[in-house]
Amino acid sequence: MHYNSLITNAFVICSILLFSVPQSFNQNVGPTVKMTNGQVWPKPALQHIYDEYLTFEPENFNFNNTGYSCDVLQDAFKWYNSMLFLKATNTFKQNTSLSTDSIIGKMEVLNVQLTNPCENYPSLNMEEKYEIKINNSSGLLVATSIWGILRGLETFSQLVYLETDGSTFVIRRTTIVDYPKFRHRGFLLDTSRHYFPIESITKTLDAMSYSKMNVFHWHMVDDQSFPYQSSAFPNLSEKGAFGKSAIYTKDDVRRVIEHAKLRGIRVIPEFDTPGHTLSWGLGGIPGLLTECSDSDTNQFGPIDPTVEKNYNFIRTLLSEVSELFQDNYLHLGGDEVDSSCWTTNKKIQHFMERNNMKNVLELKDYYFANIFNITRSLETVPIVWEEIFDENIHLDPKAVVHVWKDYYDHSIVSKVMKSGHPVLFSSCWYVNYIKYGTDWPKFYRCDPTSEAGHNPLFLGGEACMWGEFVDETNLLPLTWPRTSAVAEVLWSHTLNETDAKYRIEEHVCRMRRRGIPAEPANGPSYCHY
Amino acid sequence: MHYNSLITNAFVICSILLFSVPQSFNQNVGPTVKMTNGQVWPKPALQHIYDEYLTFEPENFNFNNTGYSCDVLQDAFKWYNSMLFLKATNTFKQNTSLSTDSIIGKMEVLNVQLTNPCENYPSLNMEEKYEIKINNSSGLLVATSIWGILRGLETFSQLVYLETDGSTFVIRRTTIVDYPKFRHRGFLLDTSRHYFPIESITKTLDAMSYSKMNVFHWHMVDDQSFPYQSSAFPNLSEKGAFGKSAIYTKDDVRRVIEHAKLRGIRVIPEFDTPGHTLSWGLGGIPGLLTECSDSDTNQFGPIDPTVEKNYNFIRTLLSEVSELFQDNYLHLGGDEVDSSCWTTNKKIQHFMERNNMKNVLELKDYYFANIFNITRSLETVPIVWEEIFDENIHLDPKAVVHVWKDYYDHSIVSKVMKSGHPVLFSSCWYVNYIKYGTDWPKFYRCDPTSEAGHNPLFLGGEACMWGEFVDETNLLPLTWPRTSAVAEVLWSHTLNETDAKYRIEEHVCRMRRRGIPAEPANGPSYCHY
Repeated sequence: MHYNSLITNAFVICSILLFSVPQSFNQNVGPTVKMTNGQVWPKPALQHIYDEYLTFEPENFNFNNTGYSCDVLQDAFKWYNSMLFLKATNTFKQNTSLSTDSIIGKMEVLNVQLTNPCENYPSLNMEEKYEIKINNSSGLLVATSIWGILRGLETFSQLVYLETDGSTFVIRRTTIVDYPKFRHRGFLLDTSRHYFPIESITKTLDAMSYSKMNVFHWHMVDDQSFPYQSSAFPNLSEKGAFGKSAIYTKDDVRRVIEHAKLRGIRVIPEFDTPGHTLSWGLGGIPGLLTECSDSDTNQFGPIDPTVEKNYNFIRTLLSEVSELFQDNYLHLGGDEVDSSCWTTNKKIQHFMERNNMKNVLELKDYYFANIFNITRSLETVPIVWEEIFDENIHLDPKAVVHVWKDYYDHSIVSKVMKSGHPVLFSSCWYVNYIKYGTDWPKFYRCDPTSEAGHNPLFLGGEACMWGEFVDETNLLPLTWPRTSAVAEVLWSHTLNETDAKYRIEEHVCRMRRRGIPAEPANGPSYCHY
Repeated sequence: MHYNSLITNAFVICSILLFSVPQSFNQNVGPTVKMTNGQVWPKPALQHIYDEYLTFEPENFNFNNTGYSCDVLQDAFKWYNSMLFLKATNTFKQNTSLSTDSIIGKMEVLNVQLTNPCENYPSLNMEEKYEIKINNSSGLLVATSIWGILRGLETFSQLVYLETDGSTFVIRRTTIVDYPKFRHRGFLLDTSRHYFPIESITKTLDAMSYSKMNVFHWHMVDDQSFPYQSSAFPNLSEKGAFGKSAIYTKDDVRRVIEHAKLRGIRVIPEFDTPGHTLSWGLGGIPGLLTECSDSDTNQFGPIDPTVEKNYNFIRTLLSEVSELFQDNYLHLGGDEVDSSCWTTNKKIQHFMERNNMKNVLELKDYYFANIFNITRSLETVPIVWEEIFDENIHLDPKAVVHVWKDYYDHSIVSKVMKSGHPVLFSSCWYVNYIKYGTDWPKFYRCDPTSEAGHNPLFLGGEACMWGEFVDETNLLPLTWPRTSAVAEVLWSHTLNETDAKYRIEEHVCRMRRRGIPAEPANGPSYCHY
């Protein structure tokens, strides 16, 4: 991570909180946890904060581009201009708490210096480091990559806050050098158990960017429905989607990818096989799914690995998919394959005998050998769920293993890395599991850092929102701020739950001001604006 | 419940389902539970359903008032006209499933016959019975009370459904005689732990009416905040509310009451004392709360029952409240009184000695004797939480006991009734407690009928949404359809969870069409329109 540092002096993590740490009100009156003002989520790597303030005249503030530029940057200026100075919808009880002698001036410009040309799309190795210096009327944001600039603009927008008088926007004098702990900070959305309108997805992408998450893992299809509209196989969605309006066209997908790119977010699709494919069976691909027995032709199992033309079908489908999606990673699934239909189907048994396969794992191995051949030919890096590794299936040398089992036993992480494969981690971040009360600390306390060590094979992780009980009605409040806890674990270098408790209150209110209906984080609360 | 029956023949509960009971799709593909079409929630007392259909031309349908009328009725016609023929937003995959020879005509008019003048406000003893007959182009709805007409219009609106072609509205030939099992079918909303905008409340009232609930229990104030704007004591909300925008003015309250009345819903306010009043202490009423000790004047406990002028304060406040709210019931709370500050405060100890009080329960008894004097003078029927009964506090003879503890031990219900007091039941209907997955059956299976017997002292019950972790962002999806399960238990005379499973799917989609973001009921699902 070579970097021409703007700020040459060594930084110390300023745990000296110069601003006052808010206390709970006396005896349970009012909010349980009082929110911070102008604190950043996730916590920056290094931040020096002074008890000196600059005020804004919103109409006299602007971003000044002093380096490279591109559409993404221009869009970001517009986006943040629209959010920096959102008016108070609620009003405060108090007057301003700032003393006039702590105000050191007016903030008029943020100079934004991108020192390299923009890249077209975000990728695993994108640079996200940025530095911010706010100490007089012109602040400075500098980064070597457009993605770092996006992260820095998000941070800058979070430094700006509305004073308790409800009308004065202020920013603290501060310097920040910030970069993520892990490269892959993802959110999985399952759009098969319930269909989500595109607006739910773009709102999700917005909210992800507010917590500096950078991968949207689109678990697009599964047993229950097949909403992806393939041009080669239109019947897959025509027959396999919940309804004619429950389909993602290629234009829908492009819209999501474009929106994600503007937020510095990769979009990785998952086409989970050979299990989790019952809805594929409605699409009129003859012989695709395994018939469970010769007597009952209504019962189907996983994709039939013995039918050669199934691989042609998958090649065509994945080829279309990898061309549509810009990322060079592709999630192949591989989890929870119920092989009982493979063992009850005589044709498959004969195939195994002919090919000297002793058990269904060898059949699964054969299946994945074929699939990895396909992904290699597409120059796509495959991601597979943990089972494929656990079952000793031969992996593509580049394959990433996505660990999701074993909430308590994280030793699988080091086993995978020892085998030379990169790891994604999700075991304790299934945000679809909800419980009464405050449960973000549950996600926050699950820190895989000790397992990850400094091994670059540990790419990061993902919060997973499986869709059985979630749809457009409850997705956003259930996801936020709970997923923000995962985002901080993946970004921040030091974690402090007590400190986070106050900041997450502010983060909730910030998200709500920006149109994300984030639910209460810590109990009784109130967003002042 | 005397009633001039329109349909003189004895009715039999038609459990013969002439329409086809939907099955789950093959093998987990598609929705877990397929929704019904034109089925009613909550299940009517008596319904005869025929496999014959009438279609609608929406522009040629109207309500025809043949009896008494009033503003409530005229508003209801408008309201249901706006919801009867909502267009499909999603489109179906199928063609119509109706055979042409099952269509017996076009439905052109619903004759609505209210046989008595309208009452001004709903009340505990309002009549809600109605009868519906749909067998030719002019249907008939008849009831002796405006409230019965409202329930009948709701039922009628649920009988109408959109066919699978996405354009034909139909209704089955049917006759219904329906009336509630219990008189009090309430929903408690706690607006103190979080403030809810009026729109959240009116939407909640709408959703309640879709499940024929009839009491909005407004738990308005508590420890955390005091949003009620009193004209006698404006500082209570000025100081005790979360913020200047987190206040319910009298006009706000009137708006809620008026909206509720149009839906046939009573509004019962709760001003919980002597505990749960910490936020009251900010309002500048000297001596209101008990100082916990002489040394630390920052710690406060319940209302100080030894200060005579506190009763004047409460009298003035409750007098204002009972005048504003139209219902003659008033919830006085009385739960969870932490008496430790009473026992540590020397002045209170002296008072108890002077008055020969042996323990704090006698002090609490003294407090409630004073409060019941006030409610009697206001001609208001008090409701108190279970503790007051459990602790053998002397109750006002008319006092209603609201049972909320003892999830497993419902014997308290019969104890209360044996003492001659009416009962409200909430023990297993705390809908703020959520768990992952499908939990409406948990509420549905809790049926207090066996405890209630046919004792008229069992008034009914309430689903309770305590506000610690709920606010405007997640209230509606968390409340619906889970609360609908409670509504059916309180309305319907026979409960069948399997049957309910299919109907609740339709009810969810119906609520969503009407603007209530009801969350998925049973897992993977899709609303076709």
